[in-house]
Amino acid sequence: MNQLSPFPTTSEELSNWVTETGKITNSLALKRAKTAFIDTIACILGAADEPVTKKVFEGLRGSGGGLCSVVGRAETLSAENAALVNGTAAHALDFDDNFLPAVTHASAVLVPALLSLGEEVGASCDQLLDAYIVGLEVQAWLGHHMIPVHYAAGWHATSTLGTIGAAAACVRILTLDTSTARSAISLATSMACGSKIQFGSMTKPLHAGLAARAGVTAARLAAAGVEGHAEPFDGPWGFMSLHHATKRSNIPENRELSILKHGLAHKKWPCCASAHRTLDAIYEMIEEHSLSTENIEKIDTIIPESNVKNLRFDNPKTVNEARFSMPFTAATLVCSKNLTLNDFTETTLHRQDVRNFMPRVFMHAAPAQTQEETGIWDIPAVTTILTTNGQRITKKIQQPVGTIHIPLTDEDLELKFLECAGRTLSTEQARQFFDCLQDFEQQNARHVASYLRNIGANRNRSHHQPVPEHKMDF
Amino acid sequence: MNQLSPFPTTSEELSNWVTETGKITNSLALKRAKTAFIDTIACILGAADEPVTKKVFEGLRGSGGGLCSVVGRAETLSAENAALVNGTAAHALDFDDNFLPAVTHASAVLVPALLSLGEEVGASCDQLLDAYIVGLEVQAWLGHHMIPVHYAAGWHATSTLGTIGAAAACVRILTLDTSTARSAISLATSMACGSKIQFGSMTKPLHAGLAARAGVTAARLAAAGVEGHAEPFDGPWGFMSLHHATKRSNIPENRELSILKHGLAHKKWPCCASAHRTLDAIYEMIEEHSLSTENIEKIDTIIPESNVKNLRFDNPKTVNEARFSMPFTAATLVCSKNLTLNDFTETTLHRQDVRNFMPRVFMHAAPAQTQEETGIWDIPAVTTILTTNGQRITKKIQQPVGTIHIPLTDEDLELKFLECAGRTLSTEQARQFFDCLQDFEQQNARHVASYLRNIGANRNRSHHQPVPEHKMDF
Repeated sequence: MNQLSPFPTTSEELSNWVTETGKITNSLALKRAKTAFIDTIACILGAADEPVTKKVFEGLRGSGGGLCSVVGRAETLSAENAALVNGTAAHALDFDDNFLPAVTHASAVLVPALLSLGEEVGASCDQLLDAYIVGLEVQAWLGHHMIPVHYAAGWHATSTLGTIGAAAACVRILTLDTSTARSAISLATSMACGSKIQFGSMTKPLHAGLAARAGVTAARLAAAGVEGHAEPFDGPWGFMSLHHATKRSNIPENRELSILKHGLAHKKWPCCASAHRTLDAIYEMIEEHSLSTENIEKIDTIIPESNVKNLRFDNPKTVNEARFSMPFTAATLVCSKNLTLNDFTETTLHRQDVRNFMPRVFMHAAPAQTQEETGIWDIPAVTTILTTNGQRITKKIQQPVGTIHIPLTDEDLELKFLECAGRTLSTEQARQFFDCLQDFEQQNARHVASYLRNIGANRNRSHHQPVPEHKMDF
Repeated sequence: MNQLSPFPTTSEELSNWVTETGKITNSLALKRAKTAFIDTIACILGAADEPVTKKVFEGLRGSGGGLCSVVGRAETLSAENAALVNGTAAHALDFDDNFLPAVTHASAVLVPALLSLGEEVGASCDQLLDAYIVGLEVQAWLGHHMIPVHYAAGWHATSTLGTIGAAAACVRILTLDTSTARSAISLATSMACGSKIQFGSMTKPLHAGLAARAGVTAARLAAAGVEGHAEPFDGPWGFMSLHHATKRSNIPENRELSILKHGLAHKKWPCCASAHRTLDAIYEMIEEHSLSTENIEKIDTIIPESNVKNLRFDNPKTVNEARFSMPFTAATLVCSKNLTLNDFTETTLHRQDVRNFMPRVFMHAAPAQTQEETGIWDIPAVTTILTTNGQRITKKIQQPVGTIHIPLTDEDLELKFLECAGRTLSTEQARQFFDCLQDFEQQNARHVASYLRNIGANRNRSHHQPVPEHKMDF
């Protein structure tokens, strides 16, 4: 099938596309996939010592060893369990990318699933990039049909649509035939679960891990011959109907790959994307007008209703809740003139200056418009600052920093990598790993994944001291 | 909390009940739980060599070893993976029990999850029985609120509600505290998935295995400290709403345990329960009137609409589809004057006498009545046989054979065990295992589970020949 027609309309055509599309060769698509891998690995490294990562690892360490690396641990696990731990880590800081066509944290599911399964089977990173794009396009296909209704109903698309995308990506790594791929996708529909009610709890990042695990399981079982219903998406009992969506009409042939048209949105701010456009506006306004807590009377932001619902913690009591709080994130940005990972700790959660400023932040839902709006970036975010001397400054923002329209620069991405990795590694090690990832497409999954493991081994050996450079050269 | 009040109304009360209820001591409840274990173990043994069981095992054998036994295999797996294989086996023949309050194959999920986790932690079978009842009551609680709407929408309750029940049962085995139990239940809501569209495919039995695995994972991760949203059932994003149900009003205090009021329905016929009352009626009528293919002109059965939908294969093309076919099961019963596991094989699927008779079997949906009907046994099944000499014989049946109203006798259960186990073991071995299970409550999970493994070891050693008795005495 045509590489530029990734949107079939039945499960048969979908599995045809997944298995019969030639190796993805578009250089921009591959470049974006590579950036997604590096940015996601940064997020995984940054969360190695997060409570949720450690707890998920502890919970699984007795439950099936294997060949696969887990961030910051010398022990290896099965591909499923490694994907579960690394997937949880990838999403734990809420600093990982967004994929707007499906409203998913696409990479937090795809990258861990592919790294683990790729490590098990000895895939090249080149294969990982190809499989990543295929998994992403399957998410886009689902998103085309199901978004925004599915997401608005309350499903956490990262976990639901992410599972099916991950299964397709794993199919591609295992080079399964079309009929087997069809079963893998069908099996994945039976594991695609998770509600947005978990936003603000440890289970939100766990959803990414569960989806990564489910993708591996679905592909593995299908490869062994387990069969699923041939058309699981359609009809009253079909996936779309049960998961609150109605399949849309066909998509025209020769449509661009979604990764080309939409790309990934890499995060500038380590918190829920629903707050990002407001934060971008505040950041720009305080820069342009030299504002601070002293001369801001009030901040008022109007964002889509689905954003408002995601940001439901006006008075966050945990660090996880703080990531889903407009008052907390906006107030911290004003107080610190920035918002970084260091602003989401048990200590900063209770900063008095931030808590004092929070009542000055107001958030409203934009009036509902059409069903076709994804509820994410289609309606602009309008943010107004009222200064203490009565001035009103307003910014209307359609696309946040980090989308392909206003991308993070290479330098931004490098700094983000070093900031994240620096939470787990010495500066020298972080730099070394970053350099190693620059020719990602020339490497293999075992080499890249072994960094995650050897970090653990080296940390255990050296009690967090830097290790000699050759120790990092696996 | 009172042992006879198993229906709390919030997640907090649910987790209180799961963790604070005293050890279940009601002898009838325990007797029924024991019967459920023995009948489910029979189904697991019977399916050791089913294609789906073998394929699931093959898919997982490289994915995490552990301490836990898998039916018919000498190799052991992690508790999760063993639960996945054994759970799939338990449901593979569709001969396992039904639990009407939740419309679930309750035991196909609970028994494998508990056997595997129990084997890992060294639980006594006494503990397994207690945990089984707790898991069952949680399913009943969910069923009270969500059935029939959830099931009618298309969700496979075995997989959805079964997952949450299994998590609660595993919580009980791990003796977690209330707050941890609450997280386990919350985590389970994020893994509770699966559509009835998979009926007739290998993924239907897989659902039982996935639910068993999910129950183990949820309890294990919660035990390690992973937290979920405290009230995952309520509100627009809550589990009930997303899974097509609305929470009902409270249930009166001091309600009987569901296992006492409803019990389990053990299957007389190895096929979808939706056909059972019709099959009971046909069986009785051909016995009473000495009927056979020669003197039956037509069979006409009126059953609830949800039953009709489950039996959607008028012309089954696979053995799995045959289990969900009214014409196939009814015609086989007429032709063979019985319906046993031997009637569901690649050969019997194409029996000419059965295929010739099938067009004489007609099935209609009873007119819809109230929402409160579970759609399973509330409306009677009315079956009429028109004989070739113009006689009309009708039977109206409310409860199928196998429910607590018309239970299988001890002899029926023993014969069923020997029929199932005889597919995997020699007659002598099957008898020996059955005898061993008679004092189930005095044993421990490792001993019982090891039978499943040693069957594998013995089979491998002896090439299916009977082994000396002492070899079975582990």
